[in-house]
Formats: sequence, C-alpha cells, structure tokens
Amino acid sequence: MPVNLIAPAASDLHPVAGVRIGVAMAGIRKVNRKDLVVFALDEGAAVAGVFTRNRFCAAPVQLCREHLGAGQGIRALLINTGNANAGTGVDGLARARRSCDALARQMNIAPAQVLPFSTGVIMEPLPLDRLEAGLPAALHALDGNAWLDAAEGIMTTDTVAKAASRRVTIGDSEVHVTGIAKGAGMIRPDMATMLGFVATDAVIAPALLHELVSEAADESFNRITVDGDTSTNDSFILMATQRSAHARIESLGSPEGRALRETVLAVSIQLAQAIVRDGEGATKFITVRIEGGRDAGECRRVAYAIAHSPLVKTAFFASDPNLGRILAAVGYAGIADLDPDLIDLYLDDVHVARQGGRHPQYEEARGQRVMRQSEITVRVHLHRGAAASEVWTCDLSHDYVSINADYRS
Amino acid sequence: MPVNLIAPAASDLHPVAGVRIGVAMAGIRKVNRKDLVVFALDEGAAVAGVFTRNRFCAAPVQLCREHLGAGQGIRALLINTGNANAGTGVDGLARARRSCDALARQMNIAPAQVLPFSTGVIMEPLPLDRLEAGLPAALHALDGNAWLDAAEGIMTTDTVAKAASRRVTIGDSEVHVTGIAKGAGMIRPDMATMLGFVATDAVIAPALLHELVSEAADESFNRITVDGDTSTNDSFILMATQRSAHARIESLGSPEGRALRETVLAVSIQLAQAIVRDGEGATKFITVRIEGGRDAGECRRVAYAIAHSPLVKTAFFASDPNLGRILAAVGYAGIADLDPDLIDLYLDDVHVARQGGRHPQYEEARGQRVMRQSEITVRVHLHRGAAASEVWTCDLSHDYVSINADYRS
Repeated sequence: MPVNLIAPAASDLHPVAGVRIGVAMAGIRKVNRKDLVVFALDEGAAVAGVFTRNRFCAAPVQLCREHLGAGQGIRALLINTGNANAGTGVDGLARARRSCDALARQMNIAPAQVLPFSTGVIMEPLPLDRLEAGLPAALHALDGNAWLDAAEGIMTTDTVAKAASRRVTIGDSEVHVTGIAKGAGMIRPDMATMLGFVATDAVIAPALLHELVSEAADESFNRITVDGDTSTNDSFILMATQRSAHARIESLGSPEGRALRETVLAVSIQLAQAIVRDGEGATKFITVRIEGGRDAGECRRVAYAIAHSPLVKTAFFASDPNLGRILAAVGYAGIADLDPDLIDLYLDDVHVARQGGRHPQYEEARGQRVMRQSEITVRVHLHRGAAASEVWTCDLSHDYVSINADYRS
Repeated sequence: MPVNLIAPAASDLHPVAGVRIGVAMAGIRKVNRKDLVVFALDEGAAVAGVFTRNRFCAAPVQLCREHLGAGQGIRALLINTGNANAGTGVDGLARARRSCDALARQMNIAPAQVLPFSTGVIMEPLPLDRLEAGLPAALHALDGNAWLDAAEGIMTTDTVAKAASRRVTIGDSEVHVTGIAKGAGMIRPDMATMLGFVATDAVIAPALLHELVSEAADESFNRITVDGDTSTNDSFILMATQRSAHARIESLGSPEGRALRETVLAVSIQLAQAIVRDGEGATKFITVRIEGGRDAGECRRVAYAIAHSPLVKTAFFASDPNLGRILAAVGYAGIADLDPDLIDLYLDDVHVARQGGRHPQYEEARGQRVMRQSEITVRVHLHRGAAASEVWTCDLSHDYVSINADYRS
C-alpha cells in the first residue's frame, strides 16, 4: 500500500533525445514478467555514476566502476531483475562480464562500453543463458518512449513503477530530464539507491556530470531509509546525451548550470521519495528533520537513529503518539556531549517536548491527530549550532515482515 | 512465545543473606499487577552498577549515579514498572528524588542510601502518589525468599519471569549468587540491560565490585540485542552483602576471586540470554559469532550489523535460508578495508559461503534444516586476525510489530 504514490502515465515522461530503451521478459527468476532492460545511448553521451559503499558490492557494481574508468564512452546499460549477482565471488564477476560481452556483440560496441546492473536475490548464480536469450527481444524493442516500460522492468518488491520527468528551458532550448528508480526493501543507501537511472539531453562538460551525480545522490537517495540495510547493488547513474541546442554548460554555478542542477535534483528527490512511499509495508511517509546541530553529519546521525528505530517505526504504524521513543533514539544516536535538557521535539506543528521533557501545554489528542496522517514531519531541535539535515522514511508494519519472510517463496 | 525459556521455581532461587525483597501492587499503570519492588540491604553491603549510555538517560539513572557517588552505603533499591520516568526533564528528576525520600523516611535511612529504578512508558509523569501509597505494603512483605516475586514485579512486555541462581564454594564457605532481570524490547544495551539485579553474600573488597560489574555487563547484557534500541533506563546492579564466612576477596585473579567471577558471569549470561529468549515476538534464539577479526571491536560491529538487520531477522522468522542477506550485512558493517573475497559463512556446522561466494558443496536443503531449529549459530570468519566476539539475538516476527504497535493500548 504505497503512500500517496501512483505510477505516472507513459505520456508524462519526456523522451530524452539520444536515449532508447528496450524491455523484455527473459524469465530470469519468474516467467511472464518484464525483467530485462537495455538502455542504448547514441555516441557522445556522457555518463557518471555513484555506487554502494557496501564492501560486499555486487559483481555488476565492480564492473560498472571498471567500465566507467575505461573511458571508451558508455553506449549501453544492461539491467536484470530477479538475481542480484552479489555474494557470488569470482564466478559472479565472470558471469557479469559475459553478459556485457553478449550485449556488446549484438550492438557492435566494445564490452567496456556496457554498464551492467542486477537486482534481486543475493548469493545465487546469475542465469546467464536466460539473460542472453532475452537480449534480441530487448534490442528489437528499443524505443525513445519506453521509460514507463523500463520503470516496470526494474521492479522487484516494488508495487508501483517509479519514474519522474521535468522540462526546463536553458538558453533558448528545451532540456528534458527523465529518470526511473526501483527499491522497496534493503534500502538505506550509503551512496545511491538500489537502482536509479536519470537521463538528460542537456549539453554539459562531462567532468561536471560527476559532481552533479554525487550532489544529486547526496540530496536524494542518500537521505532515505526503509530498513537500514545498505544494499550490495546500489547504483545511481546520470546520463547526458548532449543533444539539446543550448551552449555547453561549463559550470554548475552559472544560471544555466543552476537550472539544470535544480531540475536533476527535483527528479532525483521525487524518485528517492517514491522509493520510501513504496517502502515494503509502508503506510506512512515520514520526514525526519534535525535542526540546531553543530554540523550536518551529526544531524544526519540523529535523523537516522530515529528513522531506523523499530520502536519509533511501529509507533507510527499504530498511529500511537508514544513519542518518548523518539527522545530515546535521539539519546543513543552517538553524540557524546548532547545535552538532553535542551531538546525540542515537534510533530508537524505540535510542540511535544521542550527542554528534554514533555511540553506543559502538550495534549496527547494533538499528537494523536498528527500521527493519524499519512504524511508526518518529525522535527527535533538540538540547540547546539546552526546545521540541519533531513531524511525520509516510512513506518514498520506487519506487511514488512510478511514481504521479507515470504520474499523468495 | 519465548524460546526454550521457562520461569524458575521459587525454590530454585537461593536466598542471599542480607537481602530481603518486598513486592506490591501499586497500580502505577495497571491495576492488579505486581509493579513495585523494594530491595532492603543490611548494613555493610557493597553495591556497584553500570548504566545506559543513552544521553536521554532517565531521571532514576541520574539519581542512581548521584547516590552511588555519595558513598553513604546503599541500603535499598526502589523499582517501579509501568512508567520509565524518562524524557521527563526537571520535573522527572524531582519526582524520582521524592520517591527516594519517601522510602528513606519509612526505612529510617538517608535518601542517598536509596537507588531508584523505573521502567515502562517514556515521557509520562511518574504517578508519585500511587508509588508512595504502595510502599508500606512492599515493606511489610520484605522476605529473603521473594526473588521470584521480584522477577515478576519488574516485568513489562516480558512474558516469562527471569531469574538465575548459583551456589559456589569459596574457602570453606558456601556463597550464593542470585539475580533477576527484565526486558524484551528496546533492547540493545550499551552498558547493561533494561534492568538487572544480582546479589551475592560473598565477601569482597568494594573496589573490586566495580570491576566485576563492568566485566559481567560486558560479557552478558552488552552482548544482546532484540531491536537495536538502546533504552533510556538500562541499569545493572551487583550487590555484595559480605555475609558469607570466607576470607575477603582482594583480587579477582585469586582462586577465590575467579570462582566468584565465574559464578557472577554465569548468572549474568543466563539472565541476558533469557531476555533474548523472551525478546518481543521471538521464535528463535540466534548466536552470532564473528571470528578472525583484527580486534574484538570490529568483530562486535559485524556481529551487531547482522543481529540488527531486519532482513536477516525476518529470514530467520521465515526459516528461509536467504543467507545472502547475512553477507550484505557484513559488507555494510563499516569495516572500510574488509576483503569480501576472504569471507567464510557457516550456519551451525553447514559451510554456506567460502571466499565470499556460495560454497560449491552447499545445498539449500542443509541450510533449510538448520533454519528450522529454534537455536541457531551464525558464524562468520573474516580472515583478518585472531579476535572473536559473540552476540545473541532473536528473529523479527509479526508479533514484534503487534506488541510494539499496541504497547500502550
């Protein structure tokens, strides 16, 4: 039951000149399910990515880093669901390599021009034969208007396809930014989400793309958590096909650079929030905002302590304003010199705690009213400095347990 | 549904000379429920404690530290359930102080000779009138054989009373060690469990008691986790009444010191494991053992990453050997230079992963067989050094969500 999230119409997703997408049913794990997606990029596209910091990073993530470093110009993305090809050792890396070889052969490009991505069950061998057999159908389907298909093709436990698209005028030209993402569990990106792909036809110096993808990840996918589990496969890719007509952007600080930056961030944030709204078992979308910290790092640490607490998350599920649990999480967030007697806690506009204790005017009925909403902001003021940070999360429900207890069956 | 845990018979719990216990129903939160416990210690007892590192530590914890530091000789412990008196600010501290005053008056001792403990809902005012009204009944009931009553009197979401007792011969004298503990949720002690009280009639230099209580906490309550939430009220108290007849223990390294140390550790570990066995919604007792680390700290970090992962915990609940989730947790435990290609993973005696990937001889049926057991050991070898560490946890079930969604209703 996603929280205020519906799939976009295919017609709402702007095509991006220079990007064609093909989707197929390869039967990787289940039959009759879109599970193979190929992005084909025209020559000249710039591509940058950020990846999981999980030390057990998946074979395709290792290969993405290698191929992005090879500098041959990325021409294709190859994405499968149903199998993560993680925890698969040397054999997994060989299989990922062979999947790139197979696609490169059929597209007449070099293997290092392919970026591979996998998502699904960990520690099972990638069914290479089925993946390879699905490639011709995916290539045959290549189309600039297949973004919604692609969003559906990368879903695992997602219940809603996640896509976002914006148009912005840069110089005198129209520029498009369209992206898709997937992920519903094992979500606590430390670099990027499970999988996110954003493309733009903007014209931008390739070096700036690295800066932009890092910043976009930090402001979007690196601010969400469903269950605190950092995935082995997190990847976030930004592609710029350079096909629009405006003068090339040479600085993100220029008016044109800022316009593109804001649009990419807006698309990335919408996609990241969509992952939380469709978080496994989610019934509520919760913004945790920490203010008054010494630096953004400690604000984020406190925000994640709240956002990861199973006790806080079950209280939200129950719409029970058992808000002392939030104070407890603030207390164990690891700030050694935190003075609890200074803390303010707000639930939306309701002032719940002041100076570390229940606010004298706080009435439980007011907390109860906010807790029943489907969108809630928890705001904590630490009174230690001027920094602030925000993360987005969902509640912990029976369905989370059901989904993850039954995932493989 | 606790895992292989039943309450002991009252007759299995050795009384400890110099300790009397009185239990009453004060109606702190619910009526007709034992919720007030008084320990009365004869003069001359030595008492040491360790407490939560949560910065939002409860008012009674603050007062315990103050009273233990006052050096007047602790003569009483005052414990209530139903209200944690945490997140209650200055008013909470005043109420905790008045509760000590009230008991001190009735026992004709100084307020600083009383240690107060509270457990229950956070951020609600302690109902001091009801607590005070219950004191005469508790004092009237004082008895050396009331350990089981006390274990019942400190329960909140616990389903089984937790107590352990051992006898050991030191010199020519019999020495007794008896303890109780409570806690089922908000359990990830960073210093000690929610509440644990262990008493012995051993004769020991008071300075050694501090060392012993820290070591006992580190080997027992600091190794358990139910949900990763470090409570505001964790307290673990060790009392030595000095009433046995053996020569005073002046070193924990002497044969007598070692005998006492082992007995106190055994009682503490039994109590700590009882908390996990009765973890909210628990259906399985899981030992996570990490070997081959550079130091015990990094072993513990990896162990807790596994023990806190909701994905790992739901897989155990489902008896689903979806063991890649364990590798993923190892990967995000925060060891920057971990080499995943060296990792071994065992489930009891089954070798699941070797060199970071699925073991070639591993068959899922064998993993499945172990996953169905009620007691399971997860063993990971990091191949980085000679250190090892072990933590105990339980699975994450529907009942955990139900219990915490409905806790206050």
